[in-house]
Amino acid sequence: MASEVIELSGHIIDSWTLPRAWDVIMDRGGNFAVEEMRVGTSKTEPSYARLKVVAPDDETLELILSELQQFGAVLLHGNDVQTATVEQDGVLPAKFYSTTNLPTQVRLNGQWVTVENIEMDVAVVIDKDSNRAYSKPMHEVRVGEQVVIGHDGIRVQPFERARERESFAFMQSSVSSEKVKVLAIHEIARQMKATREHGGKILFVLGPAVIHTGAGRYVAELLRRGYVQVIFGGNAIVTHDVESALFGTSLGVDLRSGEQVEGGHRNHLRAINAIRAVGSLEKAMEIGLLREGITYEALKHNITMVLAGSIRDDGPMPGVINDMQEAQKHMRQALPGVEMAIIVASMLHAIATGNLLPATVRTVVVDINPAVVTKLADRGSFQAAGLVTDAELFLRELLEALA
Amino acid sequence: MASEVIELSGHIIDSWTLPRAWDVIMDRGGNFAVEEMRVGTSKTEPSYARLKVVAPDDETLELILSELQQFGAVLLHGNDVQTATVEQDGVLPAKFYSTTNLPTQVRLNGQWVTVENIEMDVAVVIDKDSNRAYSKPMHEVRVGEQVVIGHDGIRVQPFERARERESFAFMQSSVSSEKVKVLAIHEIARQMKATREHGGKILFVLGPAVIHTGAGRYVAELLRRGYVQVIFGGNAIVTHDVESALFGTSLGVDLRSGEQVEGGHRNHLRAINAIRAVGSLEKAMEIGLLREGITYEALKHNITMVLAGSIRDDGPMPGVINDMQEAQKHMRQALPGVEMAIIVASMLHAIATGNLLPATVRTVVVDINPAVVTKLADRGSFQAAGLVTDAELFLRELLEALA
Amino acid sequence: MASEVIELSGHIIDSWTLPRAWDVIMDRGGNFAVEEMRVGTSKTEPSYARLKVVAPDDETLELILSELQQFGAVLLHGNDVQTATVEQDGVLPAKFYSTTNLPTQVRLNGQWVTVENIEMDVAVVIDKDSNRAYSKPMHEVRVGEQVVIGHDGIRVQPFERARERESFAFMQSSVSSEKVKVLAIHEIARQMKATREHGGKILFVLGPAVIHTGAGRYVAELLRRGYVQVIFGGNAIVTHDVESALFGTSLGVDLRSGEQVEGGHRNHLRAINAIRAVGSLEKAMEIGLLREGITYEALKHNITMVLAGSIRDDGPMPGVINDMQEAQKHMRQALPGVEMAIIVASMLHAIATGNLLPATVRTVVVDINPAVVTKLADRGSFQAAGLVTDAELFLRELLEALA
Amino acid sequence: MASEVIELSGHIIDSWTLPRAWDVIMDRGGNFAVEEMRVGTSKTEPSYARLKVVAPDDETLELILSELQQFGAVLLHGNDVQTATVEQDGVLPAKFYSTTNLPTQVRLNGQWVTVENIEMDVAVVIDKDSNRAYSKPMHEVRVGEQVVIGHDGIRVQPFERARERESFAFMQSSVSSEKVKVLAIHEIARQMKATREHGGKILFVLGPAVIHTGAGRYVAELLRRGYVQVIFGGNAIVTHDVESALFGTSLGVDLRSGEQVEGGHRNHLRAINAIRAVGSLEKAMEIGLLREGITYEALKHNITMVLAGSIRDDGPMPGVINDMQEAQKHMRQALPGVEMAIIVASMLHAIATGNLLPATVRTVVVDINPAVVTKLADRGSFQAAGLVTDAELFLRELLEALA
Repeated sequence: MASEVIELSGHIIDSWTLPRAWDVIMDRGGNFAVEEMRVGTSKTEPSYARLKVVAPDDETLELILSELQQFGAVLLHGNDVQTATVEQDGVLPAKFYSTTNLPTQVRLNGQWVTVENIEMDVAVVIDKDSNRAYSKPMHEVRVGEQVVIGHDGIRVQPFERARERESFAFMQSSVSSEKVKVLAIHEIARQMKATREHGGKILFVLGPAVIHTGAGRYVAELLRRGYVQVIFGGNAIVTHDVESALFGTSLGVDLRSGEQVEGGHRNHLRAINAIRAVGSLEKAMEIGLLREGITYEALKHNITMVLAGSIRDDGPMPGVINDMQEAQKHMRQALPGVEMAIIVASMLHAIATGNLLPATVRTVVVDINPAVVTKLADRGSFQAAGLVTDAELFLRELLEALA
Repeated sequence: MASEVIELSGHIIDSWTLPRAWDVIMDRGGNFAVEEMRVGTSKTEPSYARLKVVAPDDETLELILSELQQFGAVLLHGNDVQTATVEQDGVLPAKFYSTTNLPTQVRLNGQWVTVENIEMDVAVVIDKDSNRAYSKPMHEVRVGEQVVIGHDGIRVQPFERARERESFAFMQSSVSSEKVKVLAIHEIARQMKATREHGGKILFVLGPAVIHTGAGRYVAELLRRGYVQVIFGGNAIVTHDVESALFGTSLGVDLRSGEQVEGGHRNHLRAINAIRAVGSLEKAMEIGLLREGITYEALKHNITMVLAGSIRDDGPMPGVINDMQEAQKHMRQALPGVEMAIIVASMLHAIATGNLLPATVRTVVVDINPAVVTKLADRGSFQAAGLVTDAELFLRELLEALA
Repeated sequence: MASEVIELSGHIIDSWTLPRAWDVIMDRGGNFAVEEMRVGTSKTEPSYARLKVVAPDDETLELILSELQQFGAVLLHGNDVQTATVEQDGVLPAKFYSTTNLPTQVRLNGQWVTVENIEMDVAVVIDKDSNRAYSKPMHEVRVGEQVVIGHDGIRVQPFERARERESFAFMQSSVSSEKVKVLAIHEIARQMKATREHGGKILFVLGPAVIHTGAGRYVAELLRRGYVQVIFGGNAIVTHDVESALFGTSLGVDLRSGEQVEGGHRNHLRAINAIRAVGSLEKAMEIGLLREGITYEALKHNITMVLAGSIRDDGPMPGVINDMQEAQKHMRQALPGVEMAIIVASMLHAIATGNLLPATVRTVVVDINPAVVTKLADRGSFQAAGLVTDAELFLRELLEALA
Repeated sequence: MASEVIELSGHIIDSWTLPRAWDVIMDRGGNFAVEEMRVGTSKTEPSYARLKVVAPDDETLELILSELQQFGAVLLHGNDVQTATVEQDGVLPAKFYSTTNLPTQVRLNGQWVTVENIEMDVAVVIDKDSNRAYSKPMHEVRVGEQVVIGHDGIRVQPFERARERESFAFMQSSVSSEKVKVLAIHEIARQMKATREHGGKILFVLGPAVIHTGAGRYVAELLRRGYVQVIFGGNAIVTHDVESALFGTSLGVDLRSGEQVEGGHRNHLRAINAIRAVGSLEKAMEIGLLREGITYEALKHNITMVLAGSIRDDGPMPGVINDMQEAQKHMRQALPGVEMAIIVASMLHAIATGNLLPATVRTVVVDINPAVVTKLADRGSFQAAGLVTDAELFLRELLEALA
């Protein structure tokens, strides 16, 4: 039998950290004894548990400990973080540590150092000279870099539910359209205001249905009012936004009458062609071709807009990044300072963004399809709150709630 | 080879009546020759076609003619309607004619007589003395009644799309959440106003999600403003409506805070029990126990409310009709005068109502689940327009649009 | 400050009983101290915890205790169960105790007595003479009966997850179509065999899509092989089953060719009419009119079949129960001995059945729509495992797995 | 008033070409007179109609004619196709003609010439020297090329429904899970066999759920049996396929037991890293690291596999094309010879493929989510037949049907 003593502390009772830890131990075939347990007696006081974890063999113990780490478990007698050297560009050492999106620290020379720019499913590179640690995607590591391996000296700060009534309370509950959404929308508005008051950035991730439903005008207004600092989207949203600015249609449907005014998809191709002809979206604004819409407002107010291509794109529209690694890089660069993310009507970009966002960013996923909303949570973005509702009416209501 | 000459007239081009007729003829293995065809030269002028339908045998011809009938085809040389006598209560003669929900006439003594209270999938009973024809569900026919059989002497008025731009234009298009719904909601509001102006009744069919999402207040306001003349619902909506009036919760969730204030389902049982204790919903209002909500407003304004039970009901709440045939009967009795039906968040009652509504009633099905919306159309309610959107935000927006 | 000491025992760690208890205490504004905690050291050994629960006032404490009860908490110093007398037929005493679907005991004269026929959301009646307790729906209580009130002397056995690897392991995980369903189907088959080996009954709840998709033949074969002891369904499934037996169609679609062979819905009305003409389904079998299908096999093998009507029914088919309270009563009477329930493609009957089933019945909900699957769990049927898959292919595969 | 005489010929009655043409004329505010109309008297004989189209002004007439063209209308007195010269790389002339996915011909020197490699939403380039016409995406046109503009001299062959009973009959009907899918699967199998017998290629487009559900083995077997000539997919399917080959898991779930064997997403990162370490998938097969799975079989049998990256990718896996224009180019190059496309469980790749496929390729979209299935048809891929069913059970059944 192999064993190890671990400590858990913080809001481990009300954040379900402790029971989830027990679950992991038992599911993996281990057992435990509670050596000490103190429940915080006030809402702000943390709790503490010290457990002796027992497993039938070293390998099982190792597996258990690596999973407990995700809940914030720390070995009682810990060592410094271990690293291995990258020997091939874009290839990690065999036992590489794969990150979660939770705040993470590594022990360097006995000191806990925070991993910079944490995101999910990437490696941690250690710069021993400057005593820094930062996350890096697999394909970006270079020969000679020191990459964290194994599980020693790593501390993850689990996603905690404060005992104090959470302002994003609706987020805790299960996904359903049968909820009072107006309440949730007002709560989101309140959070957006609070975020902007202390200078935090708000990211909007937008799918093309925002334009098709005529809700582009609400987003444009949000931009004008300063509630959007970063936009992530694809070729479709920018194309239909420009189509609506140039021709008043989206996929050929007149946004004022709801009627199909043009056979087939020609208008969106015309929109792309028109911008290609002048060279860029910026130029189109400059010469007065582009006079309204989300893209126009974003350019005018100097909002960072990362447009990532996809395999289904027509055109593409100038400004859309066609290389996926390049696009991810631009998305990563736009994230520092983002404290809130509102993802509307986009499955592909929702997942892409969820992969990159640290768990500390308050994230709201709005989609009429419950599958999109649950998918994000399933993929590890625990912090994402879902709202199963109509994108168009959501944005309209949000704008009113912010007034 | 068997053959017959038929005539089609009306908006048979733009309502797709003619091509659908051709389709049927060919799908069933027949063929046709266009003997005469006149296309109306102005928007209001009807078109006309006379076709010779040929089939390999009499049986196929019979099948083809019976289907063409649904599109309004009339035999060039027609006979009076044929009937057979009911010989067993609740049992139809073998060759009974089964109705559609389209306006239907039968030829009695050479005269076209309109079938009263037409609905889908029922029989037509002929009262020869009074020269009347009316629809009757199978289980209500009585020994001695004359029931229409075969296909002679029956004329169905197909669902026509006027060539004039349709005010319910959004209804023609396919179901999708990616449409400008605010436009459609304003169009519905306009139709509701027009309906009320000339004294037409508006039916609301409501599912319990209306209460769970806090949208009961919007429906109550619609009732106060005179936009609801008939309500169809079940045990759940009335129970949660009363629960919210008595305790401020729906399924135990506080409608003002969105929080679960009560463990499990106890409040809705308490609501039912409280009404059972006083005897009826009417009594509860009278003694001041019930002071708000949809049911309260309906009782106060003397709105017909048919509450039909179902196999999943708790309680039930007094006033809910537990016998299904009895409930259908009450629903049928409430329909005369109804010109518009708004069905919100209820699959079961949507289908039940769709079965009873004549095709001439403008019907809007609002549900966040596209399956509900398409299901009604699949079942023969062609006239039903679908809106895939959030029930709560729809009702809120509708109320604003009516202001 | 009010306080009380409670005990929890059993698989309270791995069944998440303990953390859920803590959650409730804190969510309701209370606090607790762990007075004693013993974790079972082997897989079969139970764990134990004694907690002192503290709340700001008596009312809050009462609320907390009543919720803890659902998790199996027992007051250290408990009293006998309290009752009040029914004073009006069909009306419960104000503070009535509302059941869960979990095994429940009440303390009578210091002894724990099991509540018979437990189901969700009903009352508990005490027969003091015979020292018995049984559940009863609200509308069935009669003047003079003793109904349990408050929370004293009630013990609920929470739904426990055995630490031993659960044979229905797939049931624990979240609902998704992106799972290996063949594995789950084989597991269900294994459980069905085991259930039948020791004489347990298996209930099938079936929606009409079973017939529309041509899967009726697989269910008929399951009946012949003795894997079905009880069937719950509605007017639609029996009607289309008879339609397919008589005419080879379901909703007019030929089940062998997939083609629409009959315009509109006439065949299912003809099927109902044919059975009405002979008087009953039994008679139809007797005279050789009904020769195959689910209903035929059920009648032939003397399988209990409860057919509950609904508001959307045509006909109805003889044998369908049109009074909802009557139908629920028949369903209740058919449940004793049922150990497994397979619910396929029926939202309405799934929920109705879920309301009546004790949590000890292994329940599998199979539907292509994830909303149906999650709805049951949301309504308190924790024991229900969901399989988001195709009903037709599921039944075909299940039959193969049982071979 | 402006007018023009057009001709329509072929299966214009049973393919609804004629009524759809009438609809367009009236919707756009025009009118028409039927100058001549001949209905084919046998199943194989084409029909013919000559219409005089009238519109209030030239612009409206132009719009109407351009839409009628999609249905195969040809001007009675036609001219040669018109072109304009590309003056900027990647930018089309203002009045560029935008293609449909239907077979298209252009009139060059009075001769009808077929446009090569037709696909949706691209331009047509004319090479006058060689008398050829071919389709080209906007971003690929180069200065000096002659691009088709306007609507003269263009003939589109509409999607015809043969009067003969269609072998893909199930495809004509609306999307629903409530159909006999086993029939449809056997029909697909029959078509696949027929396609292979005359050397046609079959394309499979696969989403990662194919691997997650354990259905990779069925696809691998299809590959071995020669039923797959081209595969389109993304980073996810190849990554999880390799993960399952190397570790027996998909997203960390053991495909034999259904249990989560590994915390989080580490195994798929390990799989990518392992292939990156050896350099390529080909090398991994060569050295015996990759010994089974879809990718292995594809490499072994020399199957074309186009793997297109996306913004949500981890890694990426070597072999995945990260530039979207490059990826589309590879997809285009793989299409010649493809006569059938089976798209399973992938929304993104389904739409991307639908954009590139000519309408003559028989396309089946299989997804458990009806939205995916309808989305493709909404976007203009009329020829796509949908099957709302479980991908895993579909592939298992398809394999059996092909045996």
